[in-house]
Amino acid sequence: MKNQKRIFLSEKDIPTQWYNIVADMPEKPLPILNPKTKESVTVDDLAVIFNRACSEQELNQTDAFIDIPEEVRELYKYFRPTPLVRAYGLEKALDTPAHIYFKNESVSPIGSHKLNTALAQAYYCKQEGVTNVTTETGAGQWGAALAYAARAFDLELAVYMVKLSYHQKPYRRSIMQTYGAQVIASPSMSTRAGKDIITAHPNHQGSLGTAVSEAIELALMTPNCKYALGSVLNHVALHQTVIGLEAEKQMEIAGEYPDIVIGCFGGGSNFSGIAFPFLRHNFKNGHKTRFIAAEPASCPKLTKGVFKYDFADEAGYSPLLPMYTLGHNFTPANIHVGGLRYHGAGTIVSKFLQDGVVEGMDIKQLETFEAATLFARVEGIVPAPESSHAIAATIREALRAKEEGVSKTILFNLSGHGLLDMAAYDLYIAGDLVDYELPAEEVRKSMEE
Amino acid sequence: MKNQKRIFLSEKDIPTQWYNIVADMPEKPLPILNPKTKESVTVDDLAVIFNRACSEQELNQTDAFIDIPEEVRELYKYFRPTPLVRAYGLEKALDTPAHIYFKNESVSPIGSHKLNTALAQAYYCKQEGVTNVTTETGAGQWGAALAYAARAFDLELAVYMVKLSYHQKPYRRSIMQTYGAQVIASPSMSTRAGKDIITAHPNHQGSLGTAVSEAIELALMTPNCKYALGSVLNHVALHQTVIGLEAEKQMEIAGEYPDIVIGCFGGGSNFSGIAFPFLRHNFKNGHKTRFIAAEPASCPKLTKGVFKYDFADEAGYSPLLPMYTLGHNFTPANIHVGGLRYHGAGTIVSKFLQDGVVEGMDIKQLETFEAATLFARVEGIVPAPESSHAIAATIREALRAKEEGVSKTILFNLSGHGLLDMAAYDLYIAGDLVDYELPAEEVRKSMEE
Repeated sequence: MKNQKRIFLSEKDIPTQWYNIVADMPEKPLPILNPKTKESVTVDDLAVIFNRACSEQELNQTDAFIDIPEEVRELYKYFRPTPLVRAYGLEKALDTPAHIYFKNESVSPIGSHKLNTALAQAYYCKQEGVTNVTTETGAGQWGAALAYAARAFDLELAVYMVKLSYHQKPYRRSIMQTYGAQVIASPSMSTRAGKDIITAHPNHQGSLGTAVSEAIELALMTPNCKYALGSVLNHVALHQTVIGLEAEKQMEIAGEYPDIVIGCFGGGSNFSGIAFPFLRHNFKNGHKTRFIAAEPASCPKLTKGVFKYDFADEAGYSPLLPMYTLGHNFTPANIHVGGLRYHGAGTIVSKFLQDGVVEGMDIKQLETFEAATLFARVEGIVPAPESSHAIAATIREALRAKEEGVSKTILFNLSGHGLLDMAAYDLYIAGDLVDYELPAEEVRKSMEE
Repeated sequence: MKNQKRIFLSEKDIPTQWYNIVADMPEKPLPILNPKTKESVTVDDLAVIFNRACSEQELNQTDAFIDIPEEVRELYKYFRPTPLVRAYGLEKALDTPAHIYFKNESVSPIGSHKLNTALAQAYYCKQEGVTNVTTETGAGQWGAALAYAARAFDLELAVYMVKLSYHQKPYRRSIMQTYGAQVIASPSMSTRAGKDIITAHPNHQGSLGTAVSEAIELALMTPNCKYALGSVLNHVALHQTVIGLEAEKQMEIAGEYPDIVIGCFGGGSNFSGIAFPFLRHNFKNGHKTRFIAAEPASCPKLTKGVFKYDFADEAGYSPLLPMYTLGHNFTPANIHVGGLRYHGAGTIVSKFLQDGVVEGMDIKQLETFEAATLFARVEGIVPAPESSHAIAATIREALRAKEEGVSKTILFNLSGHGLLDMAAYDLYIAGDLVDYELPAEEVRKSMEE
């Protein structure tokens, strides 16, 4: 199998268990807090908002491996295992001695890795007699994934979609509707959180934080209804570890082990998914792999954020998470088109960042689109603007390897394709994109709000 | 491998030769004619417009198998072999005893089967010292494929894109530009054919026939430049047979042989690609497989067209092809959004249709979108409106099998995904799509023009 362009696994190689890295962490993250009592949340606390199985997974610090339900694995077969690809084209274009591999999660029917957790969350809801699910979505990747999963398990889904995207990206909305979901522009008048924002700012174009608040509020008000989140939380990262577990087997077939693992970073789901299974070998087998989380310079929670307890949503309905954050009221400048707009990082990754196990790397948007265009031309796939952050980071590291004259094995996660993000490419092609880096004083200001 | 959802092959199973069905045809199609001399075209005639290798393939009636150049096969590895999928979800939804399989060509980086021939045509151009290539594109599937291929072989590409699509589907244009192609709205002022149309109809929104004329004209006027066509011609069908050749192996792994093979039909490239390798067993091994070409009721050349010699383009620059046609000036009603808008069928398929070896099936657009939506919900993939014609035909046959209480094995080609066609889905979701069937007198009228 050496020298193959793409390394496939067969159905039987789809993992039967997810990897729960918290069980293997020498030092655990700080607890998630109930905002009222300021004490560690319990499963019961979480289960008010989320389904019970995911609430248990969220707090599970003992089982390193957790069984994937057979019904979920059955649906993984629609797109998993995803291929591992040797980026010969990119290597040649960069004239680098580095060996570059990417895990191609863009082959899923909705075009990104988000299905890995959407299917699990929808399954558990169904199992527990839940009939209605709510969620938020920004550009629509996550909403589309949950719409697909809700349909697979015959659940009613309401998606609060950030208003700006609802109007600017109507096609992801149509995809959700094609799968049968209800899509509401956020802020909306259907929740108190939405009404409050609209009253204060009648032309508010929405933010992820507000959409999360609206979705949680609707779930709390609706019988038999749970809320589902597509990133940030531990159980989401857990479900995404299928990416890294498959990649581990595939790298073995390729006869290599990564010196560097790279993922783009919004709330942490795809980065955690590819990184955690390899990270455990740093803990357990003395590997020295570097892990790079690539984030936009306009939403730099890892490189410029503050570590503190913060809410996952704008209105403060969620538990308090110990994490690197730009403040739960933070909204990136509209000038930024590359996604990854969430204000905080998951608690596990935040802990790893504190401990120096994971590195943050902030990248300006012109560099990401330059990387994306090169990648499209030499590897053929038009990457999602989000995933392009991982490509840009990979290129930096591959060029460094060249400069230093050392061969490195780099593995990155191509979390999704960009076929529904061509409006952003259009701006880049027309020369209308500019760089924006969040100034340090903006971070300070947003933390004080 | 039985009962698997998806059946994969490995790189070594990518065919090493294309299948040239003309060599096996008991009775050959009528010759293609030089429009000036009205005699059979020669390779030299064709090589004025097309590269020489493809011109030779176009007229080759003796070699049943033609080697795939290693460089092309190497690029096929970026997405081939494509999976064969057992549509368990669709079978269940229809409650049919039929076994339904589809070949998933939507996994290619540009989202359709068009790359299979684009890579071959670009390769031959490069080999022959051609530096510039021209083509036309309607919705943009073919243009995007050739843009990818031109980049792979370092050729300059100019694409004439039907004006209506240029403005209504800007994202396929951006994809072509991201790959580095020049895209011109057609009719344009850069060719005589374009100027003539604009002079006669200042607001002309373009047609495939006109765009072909413009692309051929530019190729003829430009040094070192050849024209490439994405459908209709024999060499295009030849390159697409990788689809059926792979499917043949995969059906064998599944332990079944198709009773019915179905493809949607525009100019014939994806239908021919999946059908011809199986069709040869009807000739050679007495199989009785049915072959159904599914076309839109608003562009029904197979079911309502006339068999005669006609041009491939509006201005009459191309050779004369013996085919079922609606007239080379025919343009489908704008109300039709499902693609497959070309006025004629390839000569081989036309011959098979005459001989009763292939069946045409015309389908109205609401039925195709209903089929597409069902397919998206139960199989997860949002299909291209074009491919949805094949799905609708499959559903008809699967329901018939149920009615008759017989188990049939049906194989269809999912030629592409619809992620860039959500505007059409939007119309369907909003209830704004209506059916349109081309009246017989319209056919008569368009043939007389």
